[in-house]
Amino acid sequence: MFNRAEITFLGTGTSIGVPVIGCDCKVCNSDDPKNQRLRSSILLRTHEVALVVDTGPDFRQQCLREGIRGLDAVIFTHGHSDHVMGFDDLRRFTVLEDEQIRIFGNRETMQRLEKAYPYVFDGENRYRGYLKVDPKLIEGSFSVGDLDVTPLPVSHGKVETLGFLFSSRGERLFAYIPDAKELAGETRDLIRDLELLILDGLQPKPHWTHLSIPEAIEIAQELEVTQTWLTHFSCLVDHAALEPGLPDGIGLAWDGMKIVL
Amino acid sequence: MFNRAEITFLGTGTSIGVPVIGCDCKVCNSDDPKNQRLRSSILLRTHEVALVVDTGPDFRQQCLREGIRGLDAVIFTHGHSDHVMGFDDLRRFTVLEDEQIRIFGNRETMQRLEKAYPYVFDGENRYRGYLKVDPKLIEGSFSVGDLDVTPLPVSHGKVETLGFLFSSRGERLFAYIPDAKELAGETRDLIRDLELLILDGLQPKPHWTHLSIPEAIEIAQELEVTQTWLTHFSCLVDHAALEPGLPDGIGLAWDGMKIVL
Repeated sequence: MFNRAEITFLGTGTSIGVPVIGCDCKVCNSDDPKNQRLRSSILLRTHEVALVVDTGPDFRQQCLREGIRGLDAVIFTHGHSDHVMGFDDLRRFTVLEDEQIRIFGNRETMQRLEKAYPYVFDGENRYRGYLKVDPKLIEGSFSVGDLDVTPLPVSHGKVETLGFLFSSRGERLFAYIPDAKELAGETRDLIRDLELLILDGLQPKPHWTHLSIPEAIEIAQELEVTQTWLTHFSCLVDHAALEPGLPDGIGLAWDGMKIVL
Repeated sequence: MFNRAEITFLGTGTSIGVPVIGCDCKVCNSDDPKNQRLRSSILLRTHEVALVVDTGPDFRQQCLREGIRGLDAVIFTHGHSDHVMGFDDLRRFTVLEDEQIRIFGNRETMQRLEKAYPYVFDGENRYRGYLKVDPKLIEGSFSVGDLDVTPLPVSHGKVETLGFLFSSRGERLFAYIPDAKELAGETRDLIRDLELLILDGLQPKPHWTHLSIPEAIEIAQELEVTQTWLTHFSCLVDHAALEPGLPDGIGLAWDGMKIVL
């Protein structure tokens, strides 16, 4: 059991997952389970609530693997397909007519969800078995049970996405930033000296919309984060080959990994 | 190898799949792989082309399981989430700048896809690695390589969905109708005396948007189909318990099952 919270990595893969369809590389053909990555998402449990960040297309598979039986909220980083297209599978958490689930997202994400899932938002389908949501626009910090959540604006290619700082009872627990190329100044200030950071680290070489592993390490070190776990990996990341070369306090997360706080 | 065509069931499950998230029933906890069902879809290969019908949220997983490395087309039955939300994972079949994939759907399905995936249809993202499509509106019969495809209108609750009759060189091969409550008269005429029919058979008891197993059997018998495989099952279908009681010429399909023609 955990003291304050438990984080489970539901997925640590980039938009197309690993293995990549039709890819013949060593990592995509690896037997190492740490090289098998569903689309990035985390499950966060406290003694009061359970929530996920993002619902990519693998969401059902992730729920089954981790035995998720109830969720109080979903928080979305952004509206890209690899982070939202499992949305409808949330219906299993709102089976009864009077059940609904809180979903948090910025305006752009909410608009993407409304267009992709009009039947969820049109107010007409509030039947048993259907997905029923209580949309909450992210315009600043918000709370879910005993968690206080502060949005962390970051740039991710052409879109602004959000990371999140999770705190409880006035204490910063960790930040989750799975899709970022640059961290805004205010974001850096909010996570400086943090104990735990989960950060995009797509691959060893640079990429125009994601932090590379060396760039992510540089940020973590500059911000003097105690422990950083990288996530959102492509198939250029061979876990066993890269892990030993990382600095102290930096690790590569994997699907199913848990962090107890 | 096959003579004329090979059908692979990529998925035989209803909208929420089996096992169902959070369900404690016997089927959802069964070890029988025939009781484990991804969202309904088929892969169809001939000596000239490979295509899939529908791309539900499990599409990546289905491609990896069946080793799909190339596709010439996708044909959509309708735009419900369980049949389209894996759409973006088609990007692996249009990696190069000049590659695109034909997608066939009726007007309602195309509109759903355009709203859910605006970046695929806005003409701006035709880069390497992105999904690039050549949309073809279904307004009557059409061809894909050596296959002639005739849309089969059926009703499925509030929406009209399509089944498809696949023919080759003037000979009817089979029909695929995964989501139907009623078959229109013209559809019945087109598939009468067919050798092979794949038909919705959700569960033993009646449902308002899907054919039950008894209703599907009645249609297959009335139309004098030689062999019918039922699909799109809920967790009320225990494969091993129900299969022995079916009439001759009727079977329950399962994920990964192949039919060689």
